[in-house]
Amino acid sequence: MVKVNDNYLKLPGSYLFSTIGKKVAAFSAANPDKKIIRLGIGDVTQPLAPAIITALHGAVDEMADAATFHGYAPDLGYEFLRSAIAQNDYQDRGCDIAADEIFVSDGAKCDSSNIQEIFSLDNKIAVCDPVYPVYVDSNVMAGRTGTWDPKTETWSDVIYMPCTAENNFAPELPKETPDLIYLCFPNNPTGSTITKDQLQVWVDYANKMGAIIIYDAAYEAYISEENVPHSIYECEGARTCAIELRSFSKNAGFTGVRLGFTVIPKELKAGETNLHPLWARRHGTKYNGAPYIVQRAGEAVYSPEGKAQLKEQVAYYMNNAKVIYEGLKSAGYTVSGGVNAPYIWLKTPYQMTSWEFFDYLLEKANVVGTPGSGFGPSGEGYFRLTAFGSYDNTVEAIERMKAL
Amino acid sequence: MVKVNDNYLKLPGSYLFSTIGKKVAAFSAANPDKKIIRLGIGDVTQPLAPAIITALHGAVDEMADAATFHGYAPDLGYEFLRSAIAQNDYQDRGCDIAADEIFVSDGAKCDSSNIQEIFSLDNKIAVCDPVYPVYVDSNVMAGRTGTWDPKTETWSDVIYMPCTAENNFAPELPKETPDLIYLCFPNNPTGSTITKDQLQVWVDYANKMGAIIIYDAAYEAYISEENVPHSIYECEGARTCAIELRSFSKNAGFTGVRLGFTVIPKELKAGETNLHPLWARRHGTKYNGAPYIVQRAGEAVYSPEGKAQLKEQVAYYMNNAKVIYEGLKSAGYTVSGGVNAPYIWLKTPYQMTSWEFFDYLLEKANVVGTPGSGFGPSGEGYFRLTAFGSYDNTVEAIERMKAL
Repeated sequence: MVKVNDNYLKLPGSYLFSTIGKKVAAFSAANPDKKIIRLGIGDVTQPLAPAIITALHGAVDEMADAATFHGYAPDLGYEFLRSAIAQNDYQDRGCDIAADEIFVSDGAKCDSSNIQEIFSLDNKIAVCDPVYPVYVDSNVMAGRTGTWDPKTETWSDVIYMPCTAENNFAPELPKETPDLIYLCFPNNPTGSTITKDQLQVWVDYANKMGAIIIYDAAYEAYISEENVPHSIYECEGARTCAIELRSFSKNAGFTGVRLGFTVIPKELKAGETNLHPLWARRHGTKYNGAPYIVQRAGEAVYSPEGKAQLKEQVAYYMNNAKVIYEGLKSAGYTVSGGVNAPYIWLKTPYQMTSWEFFDYLLEKANVVGTPGSGFGPSGEGYFRLTAFGSYDNTVEAIERMKAL
Repeated sequence: MVKVNDNYLKLPGSYLFSTIGKKVAAFSAANPDKKIIRLGIGDVTQPLAPAIITALHGAVDEMADAATFHGYAPDLGYEFLRSAIAQNDYQDRGCDIAADEIFVSDGAKCDSSNIQEIFSLDNKIAVCDPVYPVYVDSNVMAGRTGTWDPKTETWSDVIYMPCTAENNFAPELPKETPDLIYLCFPNNPTGSTITKDQLQVWVDYANKMGAIIIYDAAYEAYISEENVPHSIYECEGARTCAIELRSFSKNAGFTGVRLGFTVIPKELKAGETNLHPLWARRHGTKYNGAPYIVQRAGEAVYSPEGKAQLKEQVAYYMNNAKVIYEGLKSAGYTVSGGVNAPYIWLKTPYQMTSWEFFDYLLEKANVVGTPGSGFGPSGEGYFRLTAFGSYDNTVEAIERMKAL
């Protein structure tokens, strides 16, 4: 008699953004005349840059001719894209990362949820609290997180590292030693960052403890301040303790195009075992590559035109971030983030819970945000707004919130 | 101290097609003057059909304009594609499958390797032998297969169902009761099929035993004979025992475009647990949807123009299959398949092992095929050729083989 994976049944409720989607759909159905502004899910709204559109059309035309048609992609990604990534994202920043240490994928969500697979179920994970829910949820599904306590909204076998106003949203080294440490900077959802020196402390700690850092740098394109690292490989010793995850979703607007990559240095080991061939084996066995046309679009991100156009796109969103940050601050909200990240993190007013504020904002201002508690227990009483809307919608949303 | 998933270390050698790729690359480097013809990996060679190219260009243009730009796709796929699939692949064939039972993905390889995740590690799997290696390998990685015996080249906890000339390449009901039964028809690699009555026996057996059939119908477009089912849902009772996997790779040449889907009927259960919400949860948590432009390309597969053009494309490949089948038969080979599938399965001559014949064919005829033993122990002494080459290359490859 067939049996299900019981770990799935331990997951409380549904995936955060599915729940939000359902709530918004229900409100919208009941109030068809209201214009809802969505600053909730971190989805982009600006069209793809012209250089990327040109690359896509060109690649589509190649697929129309037997002489230039492309079937199955190489397991780990096309050389042209892996080289462009290694050069532009790493070597140009002084990071020692080679093209054959890049694994091209269809996005950082898949990578960040799949990466745990190559590790034993015995490993203990540590996560920032609050953080992107996929790290914990994927470990729940695998059976690595123990039991759920509905009172504290925590898993018994997960090490939570609170990131709150008290520690300037930067996690402290945990008291209990973890095996796998998920770090996400610029952070989703708080929009906070840590300096290169602060990150170096984590790298040294991981090397000392024999732990692996899974470093999610999906939002690095939004860093505006000096001394905030764009990659963990800017730190000395990271090649022996860190895996880095990257996405094209936010720097190039690829949320609906799907492209990302994972970096695993050749010398990275867990015990005696090199991790590079393990992840390569997973790719070879369970994945069939990102579409050729999408990989060509990714290549265009690194062209001179692409870079110039995307710099403008990032600036557009960061102007939205400024509008949100300054607008809410002037209205008396306690806000952070928004300087090195497209996320603004605010304290809910009047001691409202995160979900109470979600409902209040949806109902009274018809603005959708994301409840901080959806990202972990320390997110309770906080709320996330994203800078990924259009400028006009962003201005209007903030005006509505000010008027409350 | 971090530890790896030891199950990965149990996997013998590398993924079949990676090994072939390396062997061919080495031969090619040593013999740059030889023209190698690849009838090995099941990759298509014909360009995308004009209707699909038009749809791709149109969708790319939509992504260039904020008013028509598409970000994150709906978790389970766009409604336009799910409806087209439900209508054309199921309802038009009299199968009772609704659009919301379709889960759109980036291909059947991912789905067929990921689907085991929603089941307990305690389940016992049964596979056809030989078969597409991903079913077993993904279960090895999960830790469901016991220990590897290098002598018999089998896993201790896998039920192998031999498909050989003796049983006309159709598996018999296993003596030991499995929980998960992987069936692939038209079969990869043997190219064999079973009739609707034969499949009904499996459906009845699974319902009786409380087992689930994972039915891989990736090659259904190549079925030419009556009474061979295109979907398991043509059988009565399949909604309570079967998951179906489909691909756009072979019927529409999407090996480099990446699109597939999984069907899970709403009433399908394992014990008391419905499987539909479990797979939906996996999609929502660990996947971010197929690209918008690719889903529009998928929709075009079902347009009147798309259907007509793809019928021609399938006919082109099936003509190749005929060339291979008849050419090898006239040369004295024992061959099967090729009538309802793009694969031709042949007995190696002179008692050669599959890999001996692979090397022999590569060296003497510069033709690449796939060793049958790579698909399971009962594949030893067999060899797979695919009809996915160009017509000219296919004819030349067969002439070279005849001349040996």
